[in-house]
Amino acid sequence: MTEFWYQEDEKSQIRVSYKIKSILFSDKSEFQTVDVVDTVAYGRMLLLDGLVMITDKDEFVYHEVIAHLPVINHPNPKKVVVIGGGDGGTVRELLKHPEIEEIVLCEIDGMVFDASRKFFPAVACGLDDQRVKVNIGDGVAYMMDHKPGDLDIVIVDSTDPIGPGEGLFSGDFYRSVQKSLKPDGIMICQSESMWFEPEILQRIYRNVSAGFKHIKPFVGPVPTYPRGTWSWTMASNRSLEPREYNRQRFDRVKAGLRYLNDDVVTAGFALPNFYAEKLKI
Amino acid sequence: MTEFWYQEDEKSQIRVSYKIKSILFSDKSEFQTVDVVDTVAYGRMLLLDGLVMITDKDEFVYHEVIAHLPVINHPNPKKVVVIGGGDGGTVRELLKHPEIEEIVLCEIDGMVFDASRKFFPAVACGLDDQRVKVNIGDGVAYMMDHKPGDLDIVIVDSTDPIGPGEGLFSGDFYRSVQKSLKPDGIMICQSESMWFEPEILQRIYRNVSAGFKHIKPFVGPVPTYPRGTWSWTMASNRSLEPREYNRQRFDRVKAGLRYLNDDVVTAGFALPNFYAEKLKI
Repeated sequence: MTEFWYQEDEKSQIRVSYKIKSILFSDKSEFQTVDVVDTVAYGRMLLLDGLVMITDKDEFVYHEVIAHLPVINHPNPKKVVVIGGGDGGTVRELLKHPEIEEIVLCEIDGMVFDASRKFFPAVACGLDDQRVKVNIGDGVAYMMDHKPGDLDIVIVDSTDPIGPGEGLFSGDFYRSVQKSLKPDGIMICQSESMWFEPEILQRIYRNVSAGFKHIKPFVGPVPTYPRGTWSWTMASNRSLEPREYNRQRFDRVKAGLRYLNDDVVTAGFALPNFYAEKLKI
Repeated sequence: MTEFWYQEDEKSQIRVSYKIKSILFSDKSEFQTVDVVDTVAYGRMLLLDGLVMITDKDEFVYHEVIAHLPVINHPNPKKVVVIGGGDGGTVRELLKHPEIEEIVLCEIDGMVFDASRKFFPAVACGLDDQRVKVNIGDGVAYMMDHKPGDLDIVIVDSTDPIGPGEGLFSGDFYRSVQKSLKPDGIMICQSESMWFEPEILQRIYRNVSAGFKHIKPFVGPVPTYPRGTWSWTMASNRSLEPREYNRQRFDRVKAGLRYLNDDVVTAGFALPNFYAEKLKI
């Protein structure tokens, strides 16, 4: 039979290809190309501008990390904003915590919501929950205009620092996030692969530092992201002590998790020497 | 300019390609094809039967883990056997420990030694050390015939469980390793990716259990291995308590390491839920 493959290119140096069974959706929004393919290895896969965003088989790692880490490290999480994250995976994880009262999801591209609702029902399942307010619009503008000292947690669930996601990696943006948070608020953002060039990683670290006093990167495995290991960066103006996370809060959700457990929620903060050296921390 | 690429195939479902500058060596030994290519992304890369074994830029992770973990968890490591590992990277790391008196390196394929000495001088650099005895031969036969109760550490630095490396994953082999060890001896083997099918991972775990009472898998990032995260399995008939590793011994070597540090040597033993479930532990 004829074989069909999708291929992702990294700087014309590395290419990763996935055999596909079918192309389920392919369109161009105002902001980017949006595709959904069904792969043999990872099930359904969402592509934005030709880059893998989520797949059926490994999305749980990314979403568990970016949602549960700030919640279990916050003293009293009630009000959360998610910037990006239109697939709904981060919201699905946040909704497992009964103490969260309100989640605003600010995604720039309505086509991402629609594609996720249709093709990733197990990811998008929380988007219609009554605690969730969906806002289709620019996350940078949303945070710049936000009332100061209002939020407990801001989650920056963005694409890469090129294309529509670029503004979500600037120092000005992180400062606006910090202003929107209460004094004990926490931000977490995706922060690319620790294997990437130091320049990319240092720029993110420096820009997050422009907004926050305390910064803790976390690393974990995402096989469909470039180099197979991803990082997230948690930041706050309150001291962050990940070993002293709220165990009762984690106990309530952990039975349903596939990646995180009591060992892994702290182990990911152990940074390999070569990565710490790139960040100069 | 014309572009040249090397491509690794995983079960005809996923393919990873690396742009290459040149093919430095390409031959077929009695056991396998042996190639060395110079890649844009990872520098020089050693391929056995068309699969990536080591690259200049990420070999340090694999070799630091497989060499230092058993040494710092052993009460008195003096005599070590390495099965496979003809590139010399594991030996290079072992030689950093002055208490190790003898290392026997048992590699089946002399062409791997020759290729590594010629094209990976920074990896092969310890092969001519006076504490190292090179034995070109079959690792399975070597362990079966070994004097009982003789060794402190056995390191199984093998290829995958298909092809020349297959015998190095059997229950009989692990039992022979256990017999060759002193009562407090430690074995460590590479044990594939935690993202692979449960059948592969369970078979390795079950077979190691045939030889040893106590088993501790460890996970870490190797971007040029399939799925980007690899695992190693440490085993002993003495109880293994990785949090109580020998800090003095680690202090003597850690300044020169690029992956491991005091956090990472224990963090890698934190197993994600989905992996522990696959292993049924």
